[in-house]
Amino acid sequence: MPDETAVPVVYLNGDFVSQEKALISAEDRGFYFADGVYEVIKYYNGKSFRYQDHLSRLKDSIDGVRISFTKFSELQELCNELIRKNFLEEEQAGVYIQVTRGVAPRIHRFPGNDVSPTLYIRAFPLPSNEENLQNGIRVITRDDIRWLRCNIKSIALLPNTMIFQEAVEEGAGECLLVRNGFYTEATHSNVMMVMDGTVYTHPDGNLVLPGITKKVVREICMESGIPLVERPVAFSETSSFSECFITGTGSEVMPVIQINDQPVGDGIPGIITRKLQAEFRKLTTNN
Amino acid sequence: MPDETAVPVVYLNGDFVSQEKALISAEDRGFYFADGVYEVIKYYNGKSFRYQDHLSRLKDSIDGVRISFTKFSELQELCNELIRKNFLEEEQAGVYIQVTRGVAPRIHRFPGNDVSPTLYIRAFPLPSNEENLQNGIRVITRDDIRWLRCNIKSIALLPNTMIFQEAVEEGAGECLLVRNGFYTEATHSNVMMVMDGTVYTHPDGNLVLPGITKKVVREICMESGIPLVERPVAFSETSSFSECFITGTGSEVMPVIQINDQPVGDGIPGIITRKLQAEFRKLTTNN
Repeated sequence: MPDETAVPVVYLNGDFVSQEKALISAEDRGFYFADGVYEVIKYYNGKSFRYQDHLSRLKDSIDGVRISFTKFSELQELCNELIRKNFLEEEQAGVYIQVTRGVAPRIHRFPGNDVSPTLYIRAFPLPSNEENLQNGIRVITRDDIRWLRCNIKSIALLPNTMIFQEAVEEGAGECLLVRNGFYTEATHSNVMMVMDGTVYTHPDGNLVLPGITKKVVREICMESGIPLVERPVAFSETSSFSECFITGTGSEVMPVIQINDQPVGDGIPGIITRKLQAEFRKLTTNN
Repeated sequence: MPDETAVPVVYLNGDFVSQEKALISAEDRGFYFADGVYEVIKYYNGKSFRYQDHLSRLKDSIDGVRISFTKFSELQELCNELIRKNFLEEEQAGVYIQVTRGVAPRIHRFPGNDVSPTLYIRAFPLPSNEENLQNGIRVITRDDIRWLRCNIKSIALLPNTMIFQEAVEEGAGECLLVRNGFYTEATHSNVMMVMDGTVYTHPDGNLVLPGITKKVVREICMESGIPLVERPVAFSETSSFSECFITGTGSEVMPVIQINDQPVGDGIPGIITRKLQAEFRKLTTNN
């Protein structure tokens, strides 16, 4: 049994240390410039889910910001080791990986190749939110004020946190983002909507993160014969949604039952959402 | 005389420590989320220049991201103390102030009021770049991919660093940013252009930082009878620029003599730029 009072063990630049001893130089470019990227991987039954997809996306993010990180082959064992060291094999858990460009005096230009990237990894309990998965959540909408490379999973998350905080203060579970009149995604999940039996979601590109759970849902739709169309959905179409849900590594397939003050469909999770949730759960249960 | 080999002394959360001992928790929201803001103040003759303007902008940034930081009245003495401790009274120096929302487990929503903001301040030599001020610099242009709250001086500077690096690699001194066909500013300075004897610059608002040096130049224009119009200038107007310059705490009034492959005007710093430089130098010399 895990010791509930134990301080988590994390990994930082070659060492496993207690969380409180994981200290970063104030000159880390992650701290000065948000010059880094991250990834979150969920473990079901002690095993990572869709690890290769997360690894691939991490590589894309690192390429996107041009960090010269090469230790990709070591990551899976480090993640697994953190699951073990934190006694998380028996529960649903998450592993968070952060890579920054490293420590260098504060000037905007990239440092030379003598500067090594910072690698920080931690594991933590990440149980499915059964209550919300069952009942669905209410969401609000806000303008998407983020940068124009949202396909890069960067740590420059200030807008996401500011907007999510507004959702929290309005008693909502997420905030859908709208850019130029079209839904993009949410502060830390993708969004999909159902109209006339078809699932819609924003196509991958520079305005949204290429979600792993979104990809899994896409596969489930294909296998289940549920039509899925990737196109930007206008905010003005909101009243036509019969169902809506968000997807994400933490959110899984989470029903949205109300957008701002308007119920979605009948105001309860819809039949397609339920089907996708069930198929998704089969995959994670059999992980 | 300063010891050139001495490690700088910085301030972190109540203590003056050597730079190498300035360590941040990996759980600082500045490191996880870029959840923080900063300010850079220049010292001429051992005295801060336009301190109240910088303090006011820092307050605006902190309000903009809703960090509950209150120690504004202590900042000036801390900055001055760092100038002294680092033997910078006799040279041009900069003081960098960074405030983050503090240390808390990684969830997007803001932590409670029991979490104190992180305050980190450092001082460093910041001499005017006399060669570039004399000769002017070449700049490139890129799409402005940043977020839509550029009036907040946040540490979410990943796009700025990525774009500035492109300028470096093209041998340029800065990169002007263009959003929807209009110049906004540069990666870490404002931009102004001269057409038919009038100075133009983007109006303050959510697309640009309200520059302190820009404000000083505005005042100089008023006093010198140089017409200044604040409106977005189209990229398509570039060939009409007789002069161009960038402004910033580090850049001061820096002539731009070439934009991409096109010389600006005669390809040398122009008469209005020279006048503004001279008046700006009077102010800093008499600081």
